[in-house]
Amino acid sequence: MKKFLNSSDSLLEESLRGFSLAHSDIVRLHDKPFFITRSNINPRKVNLISGGGSGHEPLHSGFVGLGMLDAACPGQIFTSPTPDQMIAAANTLNSDQGILFIVKNYAGDVMNFEIAAEMLDYPSETVLIDDDVALPKDHSTGRRGVAGTLIIEKIVGAAAETGMNLSDCKLLGDRVNQMTASIGVALNCCTAPALGEPTFQLAEDEMEMGVGIHGERGQETDKITNATEIVGRLCQKIQDDLQPQAGQQALLHINGLGATPLIELHLIYQLAAKFWESIGLNITRSLVGNYTTSLDMTGCSITVTLMDEEMTKLWDANVNTANLRWGC
Amino acid sequence: MKKFLNSSDSLLEESLRGFSLAHSDIVRLHDKPFFITRSNINPRKVNLISGGGSGHEPLHSGFVGLGMLDAACPGQIFTSPTPDQMIAAANTLNSDQGILFIVKNYAGDVMNFEIAAEMLDYPSETVLIDDDVALPKDHSTGRRGVAGTLIIEKIVGAAAETGMNLSDCKLLGDRVNQMTASIGVALNCCTAPALGEPTFQLAEDEMEMGVGIHGERGQETDKITNATEIVGRLCQKIQDDLQPQAGQQALLHINGLGATPLIELHLIYQLAAKFWESIGLNITRSLVGNYTTSLDMTGCSITVTLMDEEMTKLWDANVNTANLRWGC
Repeated sequence: MKKFLNSSDSLLEESLRGFSLAHSDIVRLHDKPFFITRSNINPRKVNLISGGGSGHEPLHSGFVGLGMLDAACPGQIFTSPTPDQMIAAANTLNSDQGILFIVKNYAGDVMNFEIAAEMLDYPSETVLIDDDVALPKDHSTGRRGVAGTLIIEKIVGAAAETGMNLSDCKLLGDRVNQMTASIGVALNCCTAPALGEPTFQLAEDEMEMGVGIHGERGQETDKITNATEIVGRLCQKIQDDLQPQAGQQALLHINGLGATPLIELHLIYQLAAKFWESIGLNITRSLVGNYTTSLDMTGCSITVTLMDEEMTKLWDANVNTANLRWGC
Repeated sequence: MKKFLNSSDSLLEESLRGFSLAHSDIVRLHDKPFFITRSNINPRKVNLISGGGSGHEPLHSGFVGLGMLDAACPGQIFTSPTPDQMIAAANTLNSDQGILFIVKNYAGDVMNFEIAAEMLDYPSETVLIDDDVALPKDHSTGRRGVAGTLIIEKIVGAAAETGMNLSDCKLLGDRVNQMTASIGVALNCCTAPALGEPTFQLAEDEMEMGVGIHGERGQETDKITNATEIVGRLCQKIQDDLQPQAGQQALLHINGLGATPLIELHLIYQLAAKFWESIGLNITRSLVGNYTTSLDMTGCSITVTLMDEEMTKLWDANVNTANLRWGC
């Protein structure tokens, strides 16, 4: 394992301290337990709290700030945060409009956010993200939440900023989630520091289709082929699931899983845009880069969100976070 | 070699088409020869043109836009762009205030930008970037230009936007370059698509100190140690070179070379900030992320720029590029 590390036990804390120091104009780190809030909290709006295992940076801490999240609760690497983190975050935010939890659909996250919601002294709602179409819709534990998460965080975050109430924020979040589909592929798995080696091995000519973001195996191991074919297969899975109408507007997000160069992500963007152009989908917004990573995984995911006028306006609204910023 | 690729010959073109499509609100791709300009060019200011080999994305194309570069000329991977690209870019920009070339100090880049400057029908000046302190000051071909480049591009880009004239832009660029020092370390080398394997090999317990951004060997191969020691050694090299006074203000930039997770880059930021805090340097601005990459290299670089009031104000000025954006 080759990493910049003092110890796998101290990595998260040292990194959070660096993150909050580097972005002290935007965020504040709280400890015992750890959570990140905006430096300027606003209790007179619905407050959004997300969180999950670490190792997916910039998700979620990098999206705390004006127009997006109010707080993020980081768990240890690939491990759910605990209810005391979410409760402490909610108490600090002290919102008089309630708390909206944005939760990726993993058993540990779901359970811990549920416990927090039950113990909370504030009204709350939860938007469950399950955009990963690698798994069938009727999968026993449901589909996983992956790179679509930030799109829900951005759109609902902007809505909350305009004064939208809690139940409408919840409905909007569910709607954006339903309009969003993602799928990923890995060429090499990631190495979690505590494990010291990749969670699974791929041969030099193999790739893992339908991979998740925690080093879990995907749908199938397959031979690596050219980029056009790989992208075509990923897009077809999204197409089969979302079944967009010709002429519909969409946001296309190409996400790097950690170790894939930007020059390749832009190649993938071009191929995916071509795929949907041929089907008549109208790509009106785009996002390309490392946003929902899996440590040092070599791979990418493709996300499509079908957009209406309201969603587009909210996507375009000002945002001021460490890793997504425009208009501010 | 595991990459998303159709062919190494077509990668650059396919990627540039994807980049310009994904960011069509900010940039425009021109071909025969290839170069990127802002979508809204402004001939009534000094125009900044940079460029260099590809494989360092988002440098330089990702920094084309309001408040930064006016055009970027991408060469093939790790290969200098050619004079016809720079001349075509300058002719398209058609500036009545002249052209400022921002050139990283590599023999091929220097030669080709010089040829372009000689053949140009516009007044021009060149700022040569040589911020890499891994090499001694009296090295035969001079020091290399690395991650400090974007800081010069940002600060001088902002100055040009305010109407600063060509000779003052040149002086400012030289001054920022002199105030900037960088050094990098790699844990694993990168793989250029045309080569198909890493340019050099490191054992499982080895790192390369003072590495460049083209897969070239560094100063020395050493045993990997803990992050605090590695960062301390890098910072000491910068400290010895820049010799800042206690109380001076500085921008601290932690740059990922491509495959290093953001969680580690923030750890490195914390350790570097601590180092300079102990010396009395006042870190007032920061930038953490993958900005000057070397394809899929595992590694990072640290850059410090000593800032004065004017430079800080120009750093803070609005910028609207694909990969550096605030205030717009």
